[in-house]
Amino acid sequence: MAFIKLNNESLPGIVGLLDYRPETAKTLSELAETLLRGPSTLTSGERELIAASVSNWNECHFCYSSHGASAAAHMNLPIELLDDIKNGLLATRLSPKLEQLLNIAHLVQVSGRNVTREDLDRARNSGATDQEIHDTVLIAAAFCMYNRYVDGLGTWAPEEKEAYIDMGKKLAFEGYVTKSIPIRKINE
Amino acid sequence: MAFIKLNNESLPGIVGLLDYRPETAKTLSELAETLLRGPSTLTSGERELIAASVSNWNECHFCYSSHGASAAAHMNLPIELLDDIKNGLLATRLSPKLEQLLNIAHLVQVSGRNVTREDLDRARNSGATDQEIHDTVLIAAAFCMYNRYVDGLGTWAPEEKEAYIDMGKKLAFEGYVTKSIPIRKINE
Repeated sequence: MAFIKLNNESLPGIVGLLDYRPETAKTLSELAETLLRGPSTLTSGERELIAASVSNWNECHFCYSSHGASAAAHMNLPIELLDDIKNGLLATRLSPKLEQLLNIAHLVQVSGRNVTREDLDRARNSGATDQEIHDTVLIAAAFCMYNRYVDGLGTWAPEEKEAYIDMGKKLAFEGYVTKSIPIRKINE
Repeated sequence: MAFIKLNNESLPGIVGLLDYRPETAKTLSELAETLLRGPSTLTSGERELIAASVSNWNECHFCYSSHGASAAAHMNLPIELLDDIKNGLLATRLSPKLEQLLNIAHLVQVSGRNVTREDLDRARNSGATDQEIHDTVLIAAAFCMYNRYVDGLGTWAPEEKEAYIDMGKKLAFEGYVTKSIPIRKINE
């Protein structure tokens, strides 16, 4: 049970919170949609992988699992991608650019003040554009918000990775602002 | 100069970033408007004080100064409120409820996982409702995003607190989604 009395305790993670406070739900959903599926030269798979990695570093099980599952759906990879995110993505083929962007995301996850011009130079040398660096910093920052929101209010989350497979596909292919909340499926 | 080439280097803090990427600017501005000036039983002054305190703990000078100045405008206090935020608000009269909500915000600033049911019980015993606890957690989480965005991209910010007085009034009384970006005034 979450720390506050929600309208529907069966909805896990952020889904129960969005249902609880529609005034903030709309903007939070639109932000996720823009960041992860809006116009960007980063693929949605790359962006979801950044979101899932930041959530893993923040130890937010719900966000890590759901966005990792969405990354797997986008990249046509099995759900075992979740284990590899936890292991530092050693078994997943990453472009040098994505490796550098993940490095920047990791710095931002700790503090925005940790990023240096040298980190950005390494990202640029690997092919990252200014806008890709911008989008990476903002995605990492945004998941520092979503993760704190989900865990700071003590929401529940399914433990096993298989529970997130359908959710990942729906987030990947239907997105974050659809009327039918994708994650509700889990409890049906 | 920021870490990436912005459209207008004279715009400080988040203002230059909003100008750089309109796709994300709209939602980020609407979120601030909803969180800080939308419907809530917390006053806007209380919410801005939470935002400024979290920004201070994250050492984000621009967000701390601008939202501290907005809190001062809402509460009809002098700009020296900024010094008191840095000193732990020892000289500002706070309700027991706001003290407890600031405690929760401080826990969330470090990690969502730090909040316990005992912290929430203390907040409830001081008069906080579930929705006030929800809004506090989300405001604290959101400023963990804004602060990382502003500092992770190395934006500049005016140093002295007097530079934020007019901006604070405009944020407080005109808000976050006006066409004329309030903070632009500083450079005129």
